Amino acid sequence: MLTLSLIGIGCGDPGQLTLAAIGAINAADLILIPRKGVAKSDLAELRRAICADVLTNAATRIAEFDLPVRDAGDADYRRGVDDWHDAIAATWSREIASHVGGAGRVALLIWGDPSLYDSSLRIARRLDPLPTIEVVPGVTSIQALCAAHALPLNDIGEPFLVTTGRRLREGGWPAGVDTVVVMLDGGTAFQALEPKGLQIWWGAYLGMPDEIMMSGELAEAGPRIVAAREAARERHGWIMDSYILKRRP
Amino acid sequence: MLTLSLIGIGCGDPGQLTLAAIGAINAADLILIPRKGVAKSDLAELRRAICADVLTNAATRIAEFDLPVRDAGDADYRRGVDDWHDAIAATWSREIASHVGGAGRVALLIWGDPSLYDSSLRIARRLDPLPTIEVVPGVTSIQALCAAHALPLNDIGEPFLVTTGRRLREGGWPAGVDTVVVMLDGGTAFQALEPKGLQIWWGAYLGMPDEIMMSGELAEAGPRIVAAREAARERHGWIMDSYILKRRP
Ligand SMILES: C[S@@+](CC[C@H](N)C(=O)[O-])C[C@H]1O[C@@H](n2cnc3c(N)ncnc32)[C@H](O)[C@@H]1O
Ligand SMILES: C[S@@+](CC[C@H](N)C(=O)[O-])C[C@H]1O[C@@H](n2cnc3c(N)ncnc32)[C@H](O)[C@@H]1O
Repeated sequence: MLTLSLIGIGCGDPGQLTLAAIGAINAADLILIPRKGVAKSDLAELRRAICADVLTNAATRIAEFDLPVRDAGDADYRRGVDDWHDAIAATWSREIASHVGGAGRVALLIWGDPSLYDSSLRIARRLDPLPTIEVVPGVTSIQALCAAHALPLNDIGEPFLVTTGRRLREGGWPAGVDTVVVMLDGGTAFQALEPKGLQIWWGAYLGMPDEIMMSGELAEAGPRIVAAREAARERHGWIMDSYILKRRP
Repeated sequence: MLTLSLIGIGCGDPGQLTLAAIGAINAADLILIPRKGVAKSDLAELRRAICADVLTNAATRIAEFDLPVRDAGDADYRRGVDDWHDAIAATWSREIASHVGGAGRVALLIWGDPSLYDSSLRIARRLDPLPTIEVVPGVTSIQALCAAHALPLNDIGEPFLVTTGRRLREGGWPAGVDTVVVMLDGGTAFQALEPKGLQIWWGAYLGMPDEIMMSGELAEAGPRIVAAREAARERHGWIMDSYILKRRP
């Protein structure tokens, strides 16, 4: 019996680890830590630090391995992602086979929560042999963003939309909602919106030593955020940020 | 200096407690535990159990108190809620004043995450004197639901909407999304939808000993869920459930 445990570890603050996550880490025979290239080595480092902090089971092995790189040249974006997920699944399968063979408990530490804008569940379903898949839920960057700003996410009894930077840029303000959470924004898609009547709560590197937070009327805070984001991205070589927009109903 | 810490504790499974939550519980001079009437005494009980499990600071006091009841007779729903929040804030202020006076750290254990369909942040802003407000993010019932079903919440690069049962019942399928999370459904609002092409992932008492999960094509799974929900509600006297609907794009 092979079990793969996808363990949500929160999104930067080691204090966001849950007791169940710590239990699952220590129940593993093998923890796989992917290296994702220089820019994200800080993230592999955080996973290593978490293991060093909470792993008390001397029998648990840790294996680091390199992830295949996505072929950005494929004109068909969906097919490019598909092929890439296949390649990652093959790498996981190889690591699992070589370290635990056909039986055991394998764990992956997943940024935030494994269900939210993360491909691990989809990749896990392509593993051969197919393991039993377990998910340990984690604190998401949405929760971290709201906590940092002490902001209620939804208005009373009202819906909210979670979307990507690309969607916001291409589609404008979404129909039927006054609250929008934006993730995976490679730039500052909020600049594509007419700022009047909009408020923004933005956060980068949330829960990490370099956490930055800004908020205000979009017309006024937007340009400040664009500048702060660019400076931080240059300083670190990478940035991870999200924001919430609210429209006065 | 008075600090109020709103601590997300996850939504039923004590394993969802984070290290930061445990730290904040133990940093508190006073933990307020509201009693919410017979039906929800199980929830007050879970909070008591969590304190018993993780509280190691002998100086931390725990105070249980009764919450005021909302005047459901107020024809103006928003005003009814508003008055109720004022009344709760007055109760919190009284408890805080009598137990710690004007200085100290007060904590409230919040179901799931404090930013998600929870009024504590809004009530906290009405406290007199106004404390410094801190939020410790928690695992939400959305994350617990996805984890239980090993379900990716969003499709790749696609948005999702989080809404209430009432909204879904009154507004039908929301515009612009193929994934909808439904919370706070006092009934089974999915019955108002044409089920063709829809899939559902439902969960009740997630993370608790009586967790129930069901999923499938809405046309087939819907009636099963309606029956299971009604039976469970009768057996327990209360139910807490959520679900995700997906439409084939
Ligand atoms: C691939 S998604 C993974 C999300 C993750 N599974 C979660 O639960 O938050 C990465 C996106 O999450 C957001 N994010 C993750 N960690 C963050 C952090 N510490 N600060 C700000 N945003 C973060 C950013 O929008 C980023 O583009
Ligand atoms: C007042 S809201 C509080 C939500 C909470 N703050 C969170 O982060 O999940 C209560 C709603 O959350 C959902 N919920 C909370 N706990 C749940 C559980 N253990 N199982 C299923 N649904 C739950 C239900 O939809 C319920 O109506």
